[in-house]
This record gives sequence, structure tokens and C-alpha cells, in this order.
Amino acid sequence: MKIHNFSAGPSILPQSVFDKAAQGVLNLDNSGLSILEISHRSKDFIAIHEHAKALVKELLQVPDTHHILFLSGGASSQFFMVPLNCLPQNGTAAYVDTGSWSSKAIKEAKRYGQIDVLASSKEDGYKYIPKNYTIPSDATYLHLTSNNTIFGTQFQSFPDCEIPIVCDMSSDIFSRPVDVSRFGIIYAGAQKNMGPAGVTLVIVRNDMLGKVGRDIPSMLDYQVHIKGDSMYNTPPVFPIYVSMLTLEWLKDFGGVSAIQKANEDKAAILYDEIARNSLFSAVATEEDRSRMNVTFLVNDPELEKPFLDLCKAGGCDGVKGHRSVGGFRASIYNAMPREGVEALISVMQQFEKQMG
Amino acid sequence: MKIHNFSAGPSILPQSVFDKAAQGVLNLDNSGLSILEISHRSKDFIAIHEHAKALVKELLQVPDTHHILFLSGGASSQFFMVPLNCLPQNGTAAYVDTGSWSSKAIKEAKRYGQIDVLASSKEDGYKYIPKNYTIPSDATYLHLTSNNTIFGTQFQSFPDCEIPIVCDMSSDIFSRPVDVSRFGIIYAGAQKNMGPAGVTLVIVRNDMLGKVGRDIPSMLDYQVHIKGDSMYNTPPVFPIYVSMLTLEWLKDFGGVSAIQKANEDKAAILYDEIARNSLFSAVATEEDRSRMNVTFLVNDPELEKPFLDLCKAGGCDGVKGHRSVGGFRASIYNAMPREGVEALISVMQQFEKQMG
Repeated sequence: MKIHNFSAGPSILPQSVFDKAAQGVLNLDNSGLSILEISHRSKDFIAIHEHAKALVKELLQVPDTHHILFLSGGASSQFFMVPLNCLPQNGTAAYVDTGSWSSKAIKEAKRYGQIDVLASSKEDGYKYIPKNYTIPSDATYLHLTSNNTIFGTQFQSFPDCEIPIVCDMSSDIFSRPVDVSRFGIIYAGAQKNMGPAGVTLVIVRNDMLGKVGRDIPSMLDYQVHIKGDSMYNTPPVFPIYVSMLTLEWLKDFGGVSAIQKANEDKAAILYDEIARNSLFSAVATEEDRSRMNVTFLVNDPELEKPFLDLCKAGGCDGVKGHRSVGGFRASIYNAMPREGVEALISVMQQFEKQMG
Repeated sequence: MKIHNFSAGPSILPQSVFDKAAQGVLNLDNSGLSILEISHRSKDFIAIHEHAKALVKELLQVPDTHHILFLSGGASSQFFMVPLNCLPQNGTAAYVDTGSWSSKAIKEAKRYGQIDVLASSKEDGYKYIPKNYTIPSDATYLHLTSNNTIFGTQFQSFPDCEIPIVCDMSSDIFSRPVDVSRFGIIYAGAQKNMGPAGVTLVIVRNDMLGKVGRDIPSMLDYQVHIKGDSMYNTPPVFPIYVSMLTLEWLKDFGGVSAIQKANEDKAAILYDEIARNSLFSAVATEEDRSRMNVTFLVNDPELEKPFLDLCKAGGCDGVKGHRSVGGFRASIYNAMPREGVEALISVMQQFEKQMG
């Protein structure tokens, strides 16, 4: 049976990427060597690394003012690396709290300067994206989490402001076009739309750096990684390779504008079914709903287990909601085909008939 | 043609590991899902992670006083994480400088306390391991680099001392038995004897922690990772999976005592050929020679290029020496079979004949 993987991350990647990655593990481009054993200083890997960077630059139209880094440590490491590198001890950074990840970013940043939390939807279970707050023009940056994996909300647009935006795009990068020039830093763990777990994309604008006067350990210093072109130490070779393959797939798909249409279509048919189906209701406020993570509940909590069982029987894997929200979550990242979403909808309809 | 991979790291892994890893990328244990797409919270991955830890514990006979962590960021991150977590600001740590990596570890540690460099072989091109130095009994720890990848030297035994040893074993872990109880911390980037690049093994003794009173970012705090069982954030799933496969292979081989014999045999036949062959000479002092990285020179520098060409023609890849030493370096880690070393020896003998 075909398994449809709705996991929130690590998550589905295109089948063609799995095929090519497996081939690279056995024999990379007929070199007679595995991608797992070649030196990161080898011509083969340098070409892979350059190609991966070029694909990021092309797909997101990254301006020349921004550096593209592949680091390790996950987005969780960026929570403290951003303020460590960019926020002077006497400076202020503005944060919007839209969920668990924003909240962790705020906690980690507090040791490096003044953190001004402009708005939070915590009291309402993070069901919406706060709006109508004033962004201080003297803050060093505004930090946002573009998509909230756990709660199923997403910034549909980014606030206008004079200060640079720093954005955790872990769960929706490459899902739609963004104007990178407006961002001081974009960071993203790979394991949703870019590749497997183990590499973190950081896009950082020149003018964000060199201003804090701190003594930063080499491995935590963006400027060290820029100087070393992400090769100051041994990079996570295989996760970067698979990211390159995934970005090649995205380019072949037509790029971020084409995938945006596909993502909007997938999200629309699923949210429509949740609205139509008498057994379910959506979690997030309509205008802020995520196109990546669709959160929903059964109206009768007794039906949770039977629905999950039916999902499993129908080949829909990873639909259980995060423990802090409950219910269900269907993560429908770039690599999820429309047929996967249709399979889930079909299970929901079958469930309604069975219960009805 | 069979390619023999003598790269210093990332480096050769067993062929059976490549085969199983490729299968896991396509379909993990007949789950219908790829190892690249499953959640790190899935039953499948939790079992992999537990098994990897159990194999480390069994192969190295890690006592219950020590925690086993799989982190990201490479050994280079441990250079500052060790003193950040373990060295009080008014404390002293003792370091022995045996090469580039020790030297980086010293540089990164200096911001956290007093660093006492007990001995260094830098003035002699790091050709030997310093001995006969006094280890201060009031230092917090003694830091060593067990094997020096670039210079081809290795501690054949560890100094007797009352203070805990912290050891960077990146390039010889799992190559021989060690008495883990003597070590406060052992750390190792995976990409030599454990797996592919992208995961770092840290074995840390309970009593090394909780004594510095510093405000440590969550992702840099060993205690956070211990509490989260290396899952505080999304771990590098695939590198951990391949590490598990490699450690299974090592167990099947007979464990670290069996591989030690094989490693000593491989090193012996290669060093013997360097001594016998009129064209070559070894770099490192005999008593300190590494069983992992064999460094050697051609006596006539004009012959470097022709020898490298012949290596290539003979399927011996990655033999070029590090730029700071020159000449050649054959890395003969656990996964290098005797036949690989014999192939290199055969090229050396053929070269001697050609050169007359």
C-alpha cells in the first residue's frame, strides 16, 4: 500500500529525491565512491555545495547583499545565534510570539539584550497571528516565525517596517515567493521543504553583522562561516546533497511561484472538506490558516482514536496532532502531491459515512 | 575499477553499510517510508537511536556514570562547549598541544577560564607526542587529542593523572579499546570510524556537569541534551542511522579488540613498506605513529606528482597529504580492508621499479 506521509517534520520529500539519494549512497555520479565517504574538500562535493547555494539564490532570488550558509544545529541554534551575532548588549530586539518556536526564540534571546515582545496570541491558544502592534523603529530587528507548525497558523504577509526582519521560515521556506531584500536574516531547518534533518539554511544580510563587539566562539560566528563558505569545519555532507536534489526537483517543478499555486490548491481542498464534513472543525482562525500544516479537531473527542485507525488503514501516516493542540494535523509540504491530500479527504468522507 | 578511499574524513565506510543505508533511503525496514522522511519521534527512529546508543555502550563498555549523546556541530563545537559547560571562570584546564585540532581547542577554550598548555610539539612540526610533563592536580581537566589526523601521530597510551581526561577522539574512536571510566568527556565527529559527517558523539561523565554557574544557551548545554536524550531538537536522523549501521558492522567484526588487531596489522605492513622502499620516508616519530593516518614523504619532491598520478591509476584515492605537511597521507580507518592497503603498497612498489 502507498503510504502518504503527513508528518510535521522530518517529513515527506519527493520520491525522485529518494531514488537519486539512494543512488548517491551507492555510487555518486559514477565516481565509484559513496556520497557518504567523499571528502568535503573533494571536487565532487564542492560542486554539490556550489549548486545547492546557486539553487537557493535562484529560487528565492536572494540579492547579492545576502550570504547563503548551510550550518548545523537546527533552527534551535539560530534562536541564540541571531542575538549573539546581531543584538548589542544595550540594544533592543522586537519579537512577535505566535507559538512554541517563537516562544523558545524569545527565551534564548533574552540573555543578549532587551527583548520587546510586541504581541502574543498565547492566551488564545495561538489560534491566530497577532496584528495591529507598533514596531519600534529603534529596535535592532523584528523577529517573526513565518509558519507555526504546531498550531497551523501562518503569516500571509509580513508587516511593513523600517527595521530588518529576522524570520524563522523552517516550515514554509520555498513554499511561496518572499522578498528576501526585506529580511536581515532568514533561517530554516531543512527538514520540511528543503531536505532531511541535519542542515540549517541561514541567509544573512551583510549589514546585520560586525556590530556587537562580542567575543563569539568560531563555530557560532556567522562571519567565520561566511569567510569559510560554510566549510570552516566539516559540513553535514549528505543533508546538503539531499537538499540540493530537493531544490533541483523544485526548480523542475517550476519554482516557488508554481509550488505556491499547488500548495494553495492542496490547502483549499482540505480546509473545504474540514468545513463541509460534519465531524470536524478547523483549529486556526480562517485568515491566518497555514498552507503547510492543517490543524483540525473531531467535534466528538471519542472519535479521535477511530479516525486515526481509519487514517492508518487508508495509508495516511503522521496525522496525529501535536500534544499541545490535540486532534489532528496534516502537514502538506511542497513534496506532498495532491493525491495524498485527496486520499486523506477520502478517509474523512468515509469516516463521516461510517459514523453517520 | 575498484576505488580504494584513503581520505582523511569524511572517509571510507563498510560497503555493507552503504548497501543498507541506500535501502533505508528507499524503504526503511519495509515501512513504506524513507529514513529521510520519518519523524524523529516515530517508533522506528526511536528504536534506531536506542540501538545506536546501546552499541556505543557495548562496544566501548561505557560505564553507567557516563551519558551518551548524539549532537550536531562537529568536534569543532565541542572545542568551546567543553569549557563552557565544565570550566569555571576562575578555574584552570590543562591542554597538550599535539596538532592543528588541539591548537584550535586551546584557542576556543581561552575565553572560559585559565588554559595551561602543558606541552607542545609545534616547534618540531608536531612530529611526536610530547611526554614528561607535569599534570597539575588542581586543574579541572586535562584535554588531549588522541590521534592527529594531519600529522599522523597518536597517543599509544594515555597519561596517568588524578584529574579527568577530556579527549577529542574524532579520528580514532572505536579503533581500539579505551578505559572510558578514566575520561570525563570523550567526543568525536562521526566522519571517520562511526558514520558520515553530520553527527558528533559525546560521552560525558555526570560529575563534569553543573559546576560552572553559567547561563548556557539550551542548545549548548549538555544537561539539556541529557534531559532530552539527544532529542531536545530534531537530531540529524540519517547520520545517526548510518552510525548505527556502522557500529553494527563493527560488532559483527568482533568489536574494538578485533578491529584493533586488524588496524595494527594494516599499519604495520604500510609503515614497513615506507621503511623498505628507497623512495619514501615516514613523517612521524616511530613510537608515536598513528594506526589511522599514515603520513609519508617522497625523498625527491619532484616525484610527488608522478606518484599521485600512479596512485590514481591504481585506484588509490585521497592519498595527497594535508597542505601543512605535504607529501602523502593514507588514512586507513576501521573500514579500510587489508586489500586496500595492499593495493597502495603495490603502487608504491611499482613506482620504485619505474623510477629505477
